[in-house]
Amino acid sequence: MGRKYNFSAGPAMVPLEVLERAQKEMSDWNGSGMSVMEMSHRGREYMSIAQKAEADLREILSIPDNYKVLFLQGGASSQFSMVPMNLLSQAGEAVDYVNTGAWSKKAIAEAAHYADVNVVASSEESNFSDIPAFDSWKRNPDAKYFHYTPNETIGGVEFHWIPEVGDVPLVADMSSTILSRPLDVSKFAVIYAGAQKNMGPAGLTLVIIREDLIAEPIAGTPAMFSYATHAKNDSMYNTPPTYAWYLAGLVFQWIKEKGGLSAMAKINQRKAQKLYDAIEASNFYSSPVAPSCRSWMNVPFTLANPDLDGDFLAQAAQQGLLNLKGHRSVGGMRASIYNAMPEAGVDALVSFMQEFEKENA
Amino acid sequence: MGRKYNFSAGPAMVPLEVLERAQKEMSDWNGSGMSVMEMSHRGREYMSIAQKAEADLREILSIPDNYKVLFLQGGASSQFSMVPMNLLSQAGEAVDYVNTGAWSKKAIAEAAHYADVNVVASSEESNFSDIPAFDSWKRNPDAKYFHYTPNETIGGVEFHWIPEVGDVPLVADMSSTILSRPLDVSKFAVIYAGAQKNMGPAGLTLVIIREDLIAEPIAGTPAMFSYATHAKNDSMYNTPPTYAWYLAGLVFQWIKEKGGLSAMAKINQRKAQKLYDAIEASNFYSSPVAPSCRSWMNVPFTLANPDLDGDFLAQAAQQGLLNLKGHRSVGGMRASIYNAMPEAGVDALVSFMQEFEKENA
Repeated sequence: MGRKYNFSAGPAMVPLEVLERAQKEMSDWNGSGMSVMEMSHRGREYMSIAQKAEADLREILSIPDNYKVLFLQGGASSQFSMVPMNLLSQAGEAVDYVNTGAWSKKAIAEAAHYADVNVVASSEESNFSDIPAFDSWKRNPDAKYFHYTPNETIGGVEFHWIPEVGDVPLVADMSSTILSRPLDVSKFAVIYAGAQKNMGPAGLTLVIIREDLIAEPIAGTPAMFSYATHAKNDSMYNTPPTYAWYLAGLVFQWIKEKGGLSAMAKINQRKAQKLYDAIEASNFYSSPVAPSCRSWMNVPFTLANPDLDGDFLAQAAQQGLLNLKGHRSVGGMRASIYNAMPEAGVDALVSFMQEFEKENA
Repeated sequence: MGRKYNFSAGPAMVPLEVLERAQKEMSDWNGSGMSVMEMSHRGREYMSIAQKAEADLREILSIPDNYKVLFLQGGASSQFSMVPMNLLSQAGEAVDYVNTGAWSKKAIAEAAHYADVNVVASSEESNFSDIPAFDSWKRNPDAKYFHYTPNETIGGVEFHWIPEVGDVPLVADMSSTILSRPLDVSKFAVIYAGAQKNMGPAGLTLVIIREDLIAEPIAGTPAMFSYATHAKNDSMYNTPPTYAWYLAGLVFQWIKEKGGLSAMAKINQRKAQKLYDAIEASNFYSSPVAPSCRSWMNVPFTLANPDLDGDFLAQAAQQGLLNLKGHRSVGGMRASIYNAMPEAGVDALVSFMQEFEKENA
């Protein structure tokens, strides 16, 4: 029994301290006689919870004052439509996307319903194992915005740099990298992220948008897909996902208590390094990703003999190492090691990998 | 300290048994070593939770096999757009709506962006205190669908009957009445409901749709607003709000254990009757709603002297009776008494009202 190490790509681990706090407050928050999930979103108690979550997030990420923070529903999949619907002045305008993996591809497919999408470069031919060299990108200097996916959850490919796109507004799907390291928000026009990897439970989506970009969406946009509507109503145009917002707030507080994003980055880099070192040191395991863009958050790796995959997964699960099966498009294994994965979990995985190799090599 | 009686219109009370079960399972569900909110939505454990929730709901509501049940995000506010976007063959087709309150009105305003909306009747002139007589409705027999709001959360106006609209598909926003009594689902084309009143936490939206009505949405519809997309993927086109879905499942189980919807209806009717009787028996309180359409779920009432409103609310709160302030468009008080409000909560409110009247009349 007891807690296990869960390497799921998302929904993913939540810090135990956060779960224990939520558990303690479940049926009576702070003497209010109500669970947080029972509170009116417009009541004094809930407003204090929502505002503290935003204040803590702004502090952690040093979000400049000219950015609006929205707490929405619908996941990154909704943002794939909301970004073009809100950033275009009219349907059919030109936008730039770089295609570095399965999630870039989904964003591109959805944007193509509203915009004239120019794919500046793609690594699809190498099965998304690398990021195309920046100087090969065929960018349009007049694009309405430039979109990229700083961390591809499936491929395990991460940008360790921010593309310089001049005056073109920079839009990023940070679902699986947000809060894993410090970030210069001022370089971005829009940052969006589903919560279920580094922020809390599924069902909450964070949008950070530079205020001057908030405008009327294109014709036909549902009210719920308008950034302007949500911004004007401080994310309470309709009932927001209050409990998920509260849990994300507890995660933000946990990050602060742990020393903020610099501390997170140090631990995350060390965790990832340990795992990549173990893979590199062996002929039994290998990484499909180019060394320069290996993700700190999602570490895919394959066994030299895929016939052993089933045994690997079964024995790992017996040792409390869960959800290591890789995505079918990549094969092999994937260890997602977000902020909430303790370093001890990575150590346990490395030990198990070495043991398994000894017995099966 | 301890739990209080929370009369919020939504988010609203959740059964204490459900909160306690969720509390117990918070950091380790059923020996899995994971919180439900940490589970991959495609994993064995979560799939069992999701499927049981749907099976229990189907059992409680006797949902026929030719209906699909979707667990979505975005609230009823998203459905206001999704209904026309998915039920029209093309933009501009004729649809019928009846306007019985603030939520009907919002649904109408949003539908008007996609459809030619015919308002068959409206009670706005009487400040939504009544339902226009059915034989006065100017229906269009060729409407693509007919939409109504069986219970208006703000006005406290409820249909205790189902409109007979012939072959026109019947669509209902049941956010604040679903699961409060037995329902003949087969009379409906689409039923939708936000979860945060009678089903669980905000951030989950239930859609029950007759399968033959699931078709390609009109051009420009975001992928996340397509019923077809969600139906084809069993509500897992993207990561669903897994924890909210789990909590709704616990509520469904609680309803089953309490004897199902007939049992709920008996208690709900009795709770409402007690409150309306107390209002009728007094000259101090009054109901703004016509007797034939008074809601079982949301009971607005006014004090003869509105100068006493502040005292009433303050003293009620002192006695653990929370969130009784009425919506600004109606004034006075509103007691929302959904399934999870214990009958003892209504008894306590009635006692307090009588006491307050004695001291202030």
